[in-house]
Amino acid sequence: MQRIINNPDFVVEEYLEGFVKAHGDIVVPTSNPRVLAYREAPVKGKVGIVTGGGSGHKPAFTGYIGKNLVDAAAVGEIFSSPTAKSFYHAIKAADSGQGVAVLYGNYAGDNMNVAMAMEDAADDGIAVRTVVANDDVPSAPVSQREKRRGVAGEILMWKAGGAKAALGGTLDEVIAAAQKAIDNTRSVGIGLSPCTIPAVGKPNFSIEPGKMEFGIGHHGEPGISVQDIASADRMAEMALDTILPDLPFAGGDDVVVLVSGLGATPVMELYIFYRKIEQLLSDKGIRVHRSYVGNYFTSLDMMGITLTLMKLDDELRPLIDLEVYSVGLKQR
Amino acid sequence: MQRIINNPDFVVEEYLEGFVKAHGDIVVPTSNPRVLAYREAPVKGKVGIVTGGGSGHKPAFTGYIGKNLVDAAAVGEIFSSPTAKSFYHAIKAADSGQGVAVLYGNYAGDNMNVAMAMEDAADDGIAVRTVVANDDVPSAPVSQREKRRGVAGEILMWKAGGAKAALGGTLDEVIAAAQKAIDNTRSVGIGLSPCTIPAVGKPNFSIEPGKMEFGIGHHGEPGISVQDIASADRMAEMALDTILPDLPFAGGDDVVVLVSGLGATPVMELYIFYRKIEQLLSDKGIRVHRSYVGNYFTSLDMMGITLTLMKLDDELRPLIDLEVYSVGLKQR
Repeated sequence: MQRIINNPDFVVEEYLEGFVKAHGDIVVPTSNPRVLAYREAPVKGKVGIVTGGGSGHKPAFTGYIGKNLVDAAAVGEIFSSPTAKSFYHAIKAADSGQGVAVLYGNYAGDNMNVAMAMEDAADDGIAVRTVVANDDVPSAPVSQREKRRGVAGEILMWKAGGAKAALGGTLDEVIAAAQKAIDNTRSVGIGLSPCTIPAVGKPNFSIEPGKMEFGIGHHGEPGISVQDIASADRMAEMALDTILPDLPFAGGDDVVVLVSGLGATPVMELYIFYRKIEQLLSDKGIRVHRSYVGNYFTSLDMMGITLTLMKLDDELRPLIDLEVYSVGLKQR
Repeated sequence: MQRIINNPDFVVEEYLEGFVKAHGDIVVPTSNPRVLAYREAPVKGKVGIVTGGGSGHKPAFTGYIGKNLVDAAAVGEIFSSPTAKSFYHAIKAADSGQGVAVLYGNYAGDNMNVAMAMEDAADDGIAVRTVVANDDVPSAPVSQREKRRGVAGEILMWKAGGAKAALGGTLDEVIAAAQKAIDNTRSVGIGLSPCTIPAVGKPNFSIEPGKMEFGIGHHGEPGISVQDIASADRMAEMALDTILPDLPFAGGDDVVVLVSGLGATPVMELYIFYRKIEQLLSDKGIRVHRSYVGNYFTSLDMMGITLTLMKLDDELRPLIDLEVYSVGLKQR
């Protein structure tokens, strides 16, 4: 295993130590070693924003703690949900008395642990509501959206919810904005290599040389087809063919485009892919209001790419445009 | 080859197209398709900052175009110098009449092409001076620093030179600041896998499983030893043992630490490495004034890491601390 680690069982502890040392201007540790908080949290008079999830997706989740974004994040083991206690402590860290919005991805462990954390928070008199991201189109039919996984679209959900909270929204308003954000967002992933969890020491699935897995999940969940590696342009067409009819997006729409590498993809290639996405959208009369291209939501050392599109309206546009300052996303 | 490309011969053109589409708020194309400029360049009354180099190092070099940083960058083929004409056009794009500082890395092709570009610029009456980065410690003995390669330390050179220019420094003052920045900076790289140039289709060197190459260059130039992969903590010790005596750095120093992945390294592991770096520096009484941990200067899909340290003084500290806004580095 060609990796930069010490004891594979302690990678999460050790990355957190390094992360806090490196980014003390934005994040602070809490009494729970698996919870990091914004250094100004809880922000007085503001609804708190909490997220969390398994590790291995850097800069998600801790990298989105920051100004006008997430107030506290619960950190799980690699590809595993944080504990209920960690979600609870994150809620406590984010709460300034205005309530807390827990905005997270649709995975069984997270759903269970957030539900338990909410019970404990309710006992403390903290108002907590949730939005569960389900933007990964290939993971279930559109008629069963509630079964879909949350992937990189979560970032846009945090962006919208975080902005609404920063602008003084009530808990109900923050939840409504975050829910609209994810309802208007669709994603798809393409995997070109597996990834290796350090404590396992070998890939937990395989992608043969010359093949790609279309519709792959953020933890290597199986996609909808395995096929010969296509050109970047063809991958872009396939990705849009999957996403556009699902919402549907249509000519005249204003969208945000988020292209993320899955960890090992050269960033140059993300731009080659984005170039075609923008062309195809332009051909259809869909306008790109804002784009993000980079390693925004990864899967350890997986080679591959994800495409996320969000349809904007007059409520979402200023929320997406509000300045943010976090490790993973800085926008003026 | 598991990659997201179209024709391997056009990866640079296509990434540039995508890059300009994605980042039109910061960069603009110029009449030379291999030169990108800051959208406010040339900035009136300010010394221009130019850099350039081969492609494959994203976000270097175009990603450091931006506010208080680089005004124009010349873009070469993968791992190859930009042409003399491209450096010349970048100088023209950056020049507002106050002269231009070309701050680049020590490679034969770049040296030759910058020299030719300077002759053309001189014919136009543009004052141009250069600083050549040579921060890669293992690439030559300290007695022959002029032979050393420039690597990730270039970012800190651009940061210092760009800030000095933004603060109204003359060309001589900008050159002096950039020269001091690189004189105070040392780097070392560790490679855990080779990288593959798309047009070649296979790695141009090899690192056996279980081995690491200590002192590797940004294009896979041979390091000083090939040995069994060490723990992250041991890698950190080796890296500091190489860098610290070379300047030398000593207790009481104030430093900037830059840890960069080489492209395919999970970002989590950069933090595990940084954690130990910070501990070891702290043990020696060396204070980390500011740290950067992420994929700041990469080598396509190479797995590996680089460590860069810069010793600060009262002139460099405010230059490093000045706000910047570019694709690769945003700092408030």
